[in-house]
Amino acid sequence: MNKLSEIYREELLGNVIPFWMKHSKDETHGGYFTCLGRDGKVFDTDKFMWLQGREVWMFATLYNKLEAKQEWLDMALHGADFMKKYGRDSEGNWYFSLNQQGKPLVQPYNIFSDCFATMGFGALYEATKKDEFGEIAKQTFENILRRRNNTKGAYNKIYPGTRDLRNFSLPMILSNLSIELEHLLDKSLVEGLIQDVINEVMNVFYQPESGIIYENVNLDGSFSDSFEGRLLNPGHTIEAMWFMMDLGVRLNDQALINKSIDIALKALEYGWDEQYGGIFYFLDCKGNPPQQLEWDQKLWWVHVEALVCMAKAWSLTGNEAAKEWFLKLHDYTWNHFKDPEHGEWFGYLNRRGEVLLNLKGGKWKGCFHVPRALFQVYKTLEPQPEIQLI
Amino acid sequence: MNKLSEIYREELLGNVIPFWMKHSKDETHGGYFTCLGRDGKVFDTDKFMWLQGREVWMFATLYNKLEAKQEWLDMALHGADFMKKYGRDSEGNWYFSLNQQGKPLVQPYNIFSDCFATMGFGALYEATKKDEFGEIAKQTFENILRRRNNTKGAYNKIYPGTRDLRNFSLPMILSNLSIELEHLLDKSLVEGLIQDVINEVMNVFYQPESGIIYENVNLDGSFSDSFEGRLLNPGHTIEAMWFMMDLGVRLNDQALINKSIDIALKALEYGWDEQYGGIFYFLDCKGNPPQQLEWDQKLWWVHVEALVCMAKAWSLTGNEAAKEWFLKLHDYTWNHFKDPEHGEWFGYLNRRGEVLLNLKGGKWKGCFHVPRALFQVYKTLEPQPEIQLI
Repeated sequence: MNKLSEIYREELLGNVIPFWMKHSKDETHGGYFTCLGRDGKVFDTDKFMWLQGREVWMFATLYNKLEAKQEWLDMALHGADFMKKYGRDSEGNWYFSLNQQGKPLVQPYNIFSDCFATMGFGALYEATKKDEFGEIAKQTFENILRRRNNTKGAYNKIYPGTRDLRNFSLPMILSNLSIELEHLLDKSLVEGLIQDVINEVMNVFYQPESGIIYENVNLDGSFSDSFEGRLLNPGHTIEAMWFMMDLGVRLNDQALINKSIDIALKALEYGWDEQYGGIFYFLDCKGNPPQQLEWDQKLWWVHVEALVCMAKAWSLTGNEAAKEWFLKLHDYTWNHFKDPEHGEWFGYLNRRGEVLLNLKGGKWKGCFHVPRALFQVYKTLEPQPEIQLI
Repeated sequence: MNKLSEIYREELLGNVIPFWMKHSKDETHGGYFTCLGRDGKVFDTDKFMWLQGREVWMFATLYNKLEAKQEWLDMALHGADFMKKYGRDSEGNWYFSLNQQGKPLVQPYNIFSDCFATMGFGALYEATKKDEFGEIAKQTFENILRRRNNTKGAYNKIYPGTRDLRNFSLPMILSNLSIELEHLLDKSLVEGLIQDVINEVMNVFYQPESGIIYENVNLDGSFSDSFEGRLLNPGHTIEAMWFMMDLGVRLNDQALINKSIDIALKALEYGWDEQYGGIFYFLDCKGNPPQQLEWDQKLWWVHVEALVCMAKAWSLTGNEAAKEWFLKLHDYTWNHFKDPEHGEWFGYLNRRGEVLLNLKGGKWKGCFHVPRALFQVYKTLEPQPEIQLI
């Protein structure tokens, strides 16, 4: 474990973080470039709020949890300054994207822009104790809770009443946010939220008969035999299970930790591609063709989240299956995603594990999953991991 | 040409049409099933208005243009009856999808639902001369023209004023609809519309410096260096070029026909995958990574539309390059898309030309591109193709 921990630390601090420090700062207009080619060259200048918020979070978190380096704090402030100036509409909702200068391109239809903004500003508040950042994080979080039951608002295209479904993504992210924002929120709000999201993830979306978490279920939690209802996203399940394990540690709830490990192992089993290796992106639980044409691709975030999840499972319980999965995932991931030539990791591989898009960042990939996972694995596999987990 | 024509006729009437006749009729609730597995088995019962309208059109068109078979007319009426009953909101806009029973699932955010509805009811009016069908087609068409400049209405997520773009899809479809609905509309409206769409396709979206049609351009027709602006969709270009050739025949405009052929040949050249064969789905005109993860896949509609386009180019002008491309596309398409075992054609192949999803129909593939293309090639390569074209 010690040796592995050191490898992840070195990759984080020697390769990945320097890549983003060097290539992603927009010195002219502020904020971050995230559309970076294989060698780090900017190929598009649009600014997606998901990725701006996530990069603020990443640098603030390194500053908070790893080392109080001024350059990390400056990098986080650089993105936060741009976001603060241009990122919200008059009601405090976060746009989906801005152009390089900060003018809005896409309306605030997507609540995850708000989720990653609050996460970024929350971490920055922890770093600076500046009320302004704390206020932005809190107001945004209140907005999220307010919009929770109709996240897309006027942009929701679902006709109400015919097939109303609950989606897994928001409870999943809230289970991470509830810990990330704990220092900012009322204790009772946090306690209630934690119980709420654990219940949603582990009781509503998890189906005990099959042992599987569905992406969408009927309002009463039952299975919907529709494209949405049949959809499986093993990466989502696995990522959510390490959020659950963090909550298990936080609550000192061993049963929650054990159940999370079982669910994650099951997702790895059905999600693993026996023919070419790697974890499928999407599957249909009945084996029908999914609507997603990218269903068989191997995505970086799925695999690095699985590394984090298995590292935690192994470290917390010594589970042998988790250890084996960690080592198998480690081999696949480092051999296929890491770019030995130009630094950072590839994001999108085809089913065979060949590079499909050689970008290092784009609309959805930024300074987040790879460095967060490297950080998490490094800290998890260090001696005395328990006290470092959160 | 004669022999090829016979092959396409036989595939249409001996394989593809019987497949849909057999598997797609919902005898219980009306309308069509389009989510059909490899062997035709229904794997999902949702009803997508694009595909309902297209199947009505297909059967009505066979009845109108090939043979007045009662079973084809009955099949068209079967779908139209369901659409008429359940398909529209109170303002006459067509929902995107309904459940099996006809209850709305997804709101009318997508103007192409309306386009294919009007196309279906227009052809059915031609077949039956029933005013009711003509009225539905006309009202829907008026709705399309009314919504033309903001097709998504309240569902439009683009923030106005920062980067307003024009999209190629609607002018492209209107260039086909203008001929399809000619029998229903005022002569002056049709003449104006035809000039208008030819101008949009051949002057606004076509860029003479590069010889390429872009999917999205600035309002003044100039290039937008953004993900949307850099996007190329060779299949769209090639399909639009046979619509333009049809208009060239209709207007007796040889220059328009010749220019369409040049543009289509150019699109085939840059769109062809030299390594594995087939035409890419999406490309970025600067060679950057596109946002579409399915960019390198080989889709049925792209290839069968290219067959139609090259058949027309070859037949109308004797162009040698068009003939060679037709034969090359014929080989690739019949070898990769046709399912020799269970009938009909596969829709989605990976870059290598292997089957990615073995469905015969789904959310986007129905009784349309394959039979329309088989019909078009069969009629185009028949003796005296000119008078059969439209």
